[in-house]
Amino acid sequence: MKTGILIVSHSKLAADGIKEIALQMAGKDVIVEAVGGLEDGSLGTSALKILEALTFMGKHCSDVAIIPDLGSAVLTSRSAVEMAQLGVKVAIADGPVLEGAVLGAVEASLGSPLSCVLQVIRGAAELRKVD
Amino acid sequence: MKTGILIVSHSKLAADGIKEIALQMAGKDVIVEAVGGLEDGSLGTSALKILEALTFMGKHCSDVAIIPDLGSAVLTSRSAVEMAQLGVKVAIADGPVLEGAVLGAVEASLGSPLSCVLQVIRGAAELRKVD
Repeated sequence: MKTGILIVSHSKLAADGIKEIALQMAGKDVIVEAVGGLEDGSLGTSALKILEALTFMGKHCSDVAIIPDLGSAVLTSRSAVEMAQLGVKVAIADGPVLEGAVLGAVEASLGSPLSCVLQVIRGAAELRKVD
Repeated sequence: MKTGILIVSHSKLAADGIKEIALQMAGKDVIVEAVGGLEDGSLGTSALKILEALTFMGKHCSDVAIIPDLGSAVLTSRSAVEMAQLGVKVAIADGPVLEGAVLGAVEASLGSPLSCVLQVIRGAAELRKVD
């Protein structure tokens, strides 16, 4: 089992879109899940939806890196981690959500442990796009 | 007229989702456009679609900050900028696409010039999500 990547965004569209890019780059051999928006589809983050994703991932991943998009997504992710009773390690990653999810998923696809995946996600903040 | 924000992602879902978060945070008083995917809807970036967005924005913005998601989105954006014949300044921003688009749109909504918006987008890479 490999480290899984959980994308948490305020927008379901953004979460699903980031997931599709990450899976295309990393291949289907890594578990990438995406949670976005509130139960009614409006913008926001739901601890319950994150908890559901974590529960699924706890059965299929060796451990999980959560990548939240902005401030309150971090807080909601923390609440969900506290509620979850999982037998695997879960950590909140510190890096940009799209770039971090893509690089993190590629790293996870190589079978790297959580600590390496977290480091790669953090490093994604250093990606330069313009010389 | 204000600085406009153009999000360029490999995924239409991601581009549209990032746009909806940015508009919610910045208000409707700033122009945020989103381009994602190829003409057939598959993942990738299209210089033609970027060019169309730039042409629209050239008429409604004082200048434009393009925020691409990953490597080849930067190259495609550069090609589109070279093709475009606009009377406004256009620059490719160096920052994470979701976090940069949200902070950049908020800055642009204040009426800040392109240079300030670019600086804020670059600064979005420094956002810490975990203590």
